[in-house]
Amino acid sequence: MIRNDRFLRALRRETVDRTPVWLMRQAGRYLPEYRALRARAGSFLAMVRDPELACEITLQPLRRFPLDAAILFSDILVIPEALGLGLDFVEGEGPRLSRPLSSRAEIEALPALDPAALDYVAAAARAVRAALGDELPLIGFAGSPLTLACYMVEGGASADFARVRALAHADPEGFAALLAKLADAVAACLRLQAEAGADALMVFDTWGGLFPPALYRRHALPSLAAVAAALRRECPARPLILFGRGTGPWLEALAATGFDALGLDWTVELAAARARVGERVALQGNLDPALLLAPPAAIEAAVAELLAAYGGAPGHVFNLGHGVMPEADPERVSFLVETVARLSAPLHARAAARAQA
Amino acid sequence: MIRNDRFLRALRRETVDRTPVWLMRQAGRYLPEYRALRARAGSFLAMVRDPELACEITLQPLRRFPLDAAILFSDILVIPEALGLGLDFVEGEGPRLSRPLSSRAEIEALPALDPAALDYVAAAARAVRAALGDELPLIGFAGSPLTLACYMVEGGASADFARVRALAHADPEGFAALLAKLADAVAACLRLQAEAGADALMVFDTWGGLFPPALYRRHALPSLAAVAAALRRECPARPLILFGRGTGPWLEALAATGFDALGLDWTVELAAARARVGERVALQGNLDPALLLAPPAAIEAAVAELLAAYGGAPGHVFNLGHGVMPEADPERVSFLVETVARLSAPLHARAAARAQA
Repeated sequence: MIRNDRFLRALRRETVDRTPVWLMRQAGRYLPEYRALRARAGSFLAMVRDPELACEITLQPLRRFPLDAAILFSDILVIPEALGLGLDFVEGEGPRLSRPLSSRAEIEALPALDPAALDYVAAAARAVRAALGDELPLIGFAGSPLTLACYMVEGGASADFARVRALAHADPEGFAALLAKLADAVAACLRLQAEAGADALMVFDTWGGLFPPALYRRHALPSLAAVAAALRRECPARPLILFGRGTGPWLEALAATGFDALGLDWTVELAAARARVGERVALQGNLDPALLLAPPAAIEAAVAELLAAYGGAPGHVFNLGHGVMPEADPERVSFLVETVARLSAPLHARAAARAQA
Repeated sequence: MIRNDRFLRALRRETVDRTPVWLMRQAGRYLPEYRALRARAGSFLAMVRDPELACEITLQPLRRFPLDAAILFSDILVIPEALGLGLDFVEGEGPRLSRPLSSRAEIEALPALDPAALDYVAAAARAVRAALGDELPLIGFAGSPLTLACYMVEGGASADFARVRALAHADPEGFAALLAKLADAVAACLRLQAEAGADALMVFDTWGGLFPPALYRRHALPSLAAVAAALRRECPARPLILFGRGTGPWLEALAATGFDALGLDWTVELAAARARVGERVALQGNLDPALLLAPPAAIEAAVAELLAAYGGAPGHVFNLGHGVMPEADPERVSFLVETVARLSAPLHARAAARAQA
């Protein structure tokens, strides 16, 4: 049993004393202690691959802010690397895969994920679990099959991943085969994090919103449903969260894929989203991360608006609509976390009073 | 009177013999004759600023493909430059404004647009008009106030324009003042193109989709409505088109801003969009531009699907959901344009027969 269980209760849409809050990229470049550790480690990948460093980075924001969940420090590209595509991060350019997929033959030759190739991820999760004890829940995560396919075909980041879309248009069967393999790999990666101590599992569909409806329907939705079905079977006690960027038009369909909660980006209207998904899923999000560059009064007004939009009902996890920006001031992050607690407690107290009346 | 008036008729939601087609960035890097001219001109800006070159580039795709409209070769950043922000294009990096706006004082000091500063745009439009005669309609265009504000605050391109969003959160009145000034400038820029011979006027809201709902509602919608109102008053005979990227959630609100047609990006479902906007506006779009990297059979299937989604009813202008990619093969573009004509004619014939019955 986890002592601070607000986050897990909210994911199950149970009542809470205040809205739980954690932040995507809560461990990251905006923290001086992260930058110091990164300078010593030499590279981002060195930190991801070293369980002790990854554990330390995971814990850094928890020492500063009363957050309601930890999220394992790692990267969604550990799966393509474990599948043999060769990962490197080029300074100022982002990730590069040295052996991207370019043909149906290469897709068919792609091996199943060997969990041993992700031993370092499991070791990091075990270290965090040991450090947290039973105080706080830990989130394990992976990229969505479609988002991983984007990097694995393109070979790196892209403004619009047009080459991946072209491949999906040109060879829908080959692309579907790739996503089926990746759904297995994603489920395996999340399962090993659950076995190492993660209490909730999250999938990041960062690039799904770039796909036209016909491709999203054919490829994204079934592969997400396959991941959720595998995890329901293999880790039934772990709530599943699905974050999508630019996937606001798909909320109803996403609420039917088997995930317990949907993470919303900052362009989605929270009240409208809640009306669309009803009681089917919890919602996580979705403050504009740019607000952390604005004065406290603007942050407080936006937090109040977002909490009111959900109305103190069960099922809201407060978060940003995207990761904390490197330019964010940790003082503002502190103010944000404190403000969520201060403003949400009375909302939940009133909801509890109404429920008793 | 323009002889090929399919495009203008479709914008007015009148019947046509086949669905008109033109392509965003139909004049551009995918054409070898464009690359040759660019190599001689030395820079992108040199071509934009030279009316003779801009005219020639505008005409290049019309010599290859039976397109139903020309669009003036220019750039949305001619307005910030005319307002004194200093424009340059850095090879491989995109546009840079040397004097971006960083304070309320700088916003307040921003002058009104002097139409004389855009004489070269008007001259290019006149040259194209003279070359086209009364054969084909010409589209004039400008960036939306919000999209121009993005570049003018950020100083160049950005993955998410977070600094602009932060400014809008921090100083909503200052940001509204900026957008009001830009709405005047955009209307003036479009009016001078209309006076120089443009038959339709188009606004590109490329980055509006990056804004959270509260900011989009407060800033984007009123400034777009202001542009449309000014043009209705000053150029009542020119149909107005509004293209938005990532603004699919706003279609109903955008259909009420006063534009005659909405341009859809490739992530919007055309049939659903039509159901949402009803008879209020025509729709333009929205084939995934990545299809031009796929085989002809995939292009043909997608064209058939898109035409069927609109169903041969009045009010559809065929286009991509974003610009032609530099990697596109002109042969595929030719096939696309031919396919739209071939597959749409029977649809319109059937619709006409139904209307007579």
